[in-house]
Amino acid sequence: MQAIAPKVCRAVELKDLPWVDFPTGLSAGGIRWKLLNVAPELGSWAAIFDCPAGSSFASHHHIGPGEYYLTRGRMEIRGGEAEGGETVIAPAYGYEATSAFHGKTYFPVDSEFYMTFLGPLQFVDEPGGPTKALVTWDGAQAAWLASQP
Amino acid sequence: MQAIAPKVCRAVELKDLPWVDFPTGLSAGGIRWKLLNVAPELGSWAAIFDCPAGSSFASHHHIGPGEYYLTRGRMEIRGGEAEGGETVIAPAYGYEATSAFHGKTYFPVDSEFYMTFLGPLQFVDEPGGPTKALVTWDGAQAAWLASQP
Amino acid sequence: MQAIAPKVCRAVELKDLPWVDFPTGLSAGGIRWKLLNVAPELGSWAAIFDCPAGSSFASHHHIGPGEYYLTRGRMEIRGGEAEGGETVIAPAYGYEATSAFHGKTYFPVDSEFYMTFLGPLQFVDEPGGPTKALVTWDGAQAAWLASQP
Amino acid sequence: MQAIAPKVCRAVELKDLPWVDFPTGLSAGGIRWKLLNVAPELGSWAAIFDCPAGSSFASHHHIGPGEYYLTRGRMEIRGGEAEGGETVIAPAYGYEATSAFHGKTYFPVDSEFYMTFLGPLQFVDEPGGPTKALVTWDGAQAAWLASQP
Repeated sequence: MQAIAPKVCRAVELKDLPWVDFPTGLSAGGIRWKLLNVAPELGSWAAIFDCPAGSSFASHHHIGPGEYYLTRGRMEIRGGEAEGGETVIAPAYGYEATSAFHGKTYFPVDSEFYMTFLGPLQFVDEPGGPTKALVTWDGAQAAWLASQP
Repeated sequence: MQAIAPKVCRAVELKDLPWVDFPTGLSAGGIRWKLLNVAPELGSWAAIFDCPAGSSFASHHHIGPGEYYLTRGRMEIRGGEAEGGETVIAPAYGYEATSAFHGKTYFPVDSEFYMTFLGPLQFVDEPGGPTKALVTWDGAQAAWLASQP
Repeated sequence: MQAIAPKVCRAVELKDLPWVDFPTGLSAGGIRWKLLNVAPELGSWAAIFDCPAGSSFASHHHIGPGEYYLTRGRMEIRGGEAEGGETVIAPAYGYEATSAFHGKTYFPVDSEFYMTFLGPLQFVDEPGGPTKALVTWDGAQAAWLASQP
Repeated sequence: MQAIAPKVCRAVELKDLPWVDFPTGLSAGGIRWKLLNVAPELGSWAAIFDCPAGSSFASHHHIGPGEYYLTRGRMEIRGGEAEGGETVIAPAYGYEATSAFHGKTYFPVDSEFYMTFLGPLQFVDEPGGPTKALVTWDGAQAAWLASQP
């Protein structure tokens, strides 16, 4: 076995990254994002999302656990409280378990959140339905790189 | 925050589990398996596979890292050495990185291997192609439970 | 094997949690924290830290990867830029790799950051030195629960 | 952000690695091991252990989850069935949860097992006691490299 060195730490200030549109078809209402990190060995990635009032994400499963920190605004998760999910007001933290289904993630007011994903997002029309898109760490990275000016 | 207790340890002797056929369409040549564990919070699962001479798995990506321990026989991975992949003879260990594509996993002789998966297998026809099946820890568990007598 | 259900999602608004002092001996200058989550199966935990100007953390290794989101202020990591580390100004993100040594984490101005830890913090006097304290997910939880009014 | 490439897959046949003594003080009775892999970003490592009749490991906590596959012999875990733990006969699989305490791991007959560790082993004299040794992926690697002829 060859000696393997520890991985390198890294940091980025958000002002140094542009906002770009989140991939079409996976969201509505003008959501923009900044990809902050990918960690290939873990299959994890981190990003921040800018969500105007009225915007939403398309239905998806969290294939691995995800943790968000809502820095601004309000987020309705899994349909919001009205449909048995949750509604959180910033600042707020949430843990989305492996396989959690997010049929509806909606932002009634201008909002922003930071999120770490251990594993991909699986976009589907309904829980357990056929995969429309699987956003892995490398897919996220490819989308991000393709969107740079 | 409620106090959360550590998870429970668990063990199983393999003689107490039946061999069942691995889900149709994902393999050829009579591969059988025993599901040994699922760990939902991690999204990980562990299994042992009995692979007769001439059997193979359909093309897939490892969405998270996977580690195998080949206890018996011979395994040709990613096409085997003839196609730039690897051929290993038991006893052997291997680490399959996140997003690794296994276009061809073939067993030229009767073989058996134990494997831990951190995340799902994504079955596809070609690298980066549309998802034919996504075998998550809960999908693996559902398939296993459905196959019990 | 018994069927195992997915874990439960959870969310918390930060206003519903009190600020409490971070355990004595592990920090200086009045750092306070809120523990937001523990995920025992992963061994991960998430917290937010309030760091007054002039405060600091004692020397530690990150035993697993850690990701922070600095929401306010300025953080000098691994000695800051002056000593080969990094200095980041909010809003900023950073990834601290497994085994990374943080000899000095210093806040020159009032700062706040959110962080997720996959694995414990190992407090030591010098890199690779004897363990003074190992802050695991369950140790973090015990400290948090003990500090509640 | 720079594009980051997927990590490399790797495989090893066990006949190509020598057996070496497991570090002194952490075991008794002549346990030998082969380190098969380290995955720094995960903080994980994989190894196989050769355990003569009467051998044992010193008391330790599993800081992250560990999964073993006992290929040969018999293993008494957490004191064995006589003390509320488990005794398994090969072939057997086990999942040791994060923070699990192994006060006594004993091999009454010649045994061999393969194990993957997500995080370090913390050797202690008693549950929650001061850390005598913390065997991380990089410590395991350093011990292994130091023992090569």
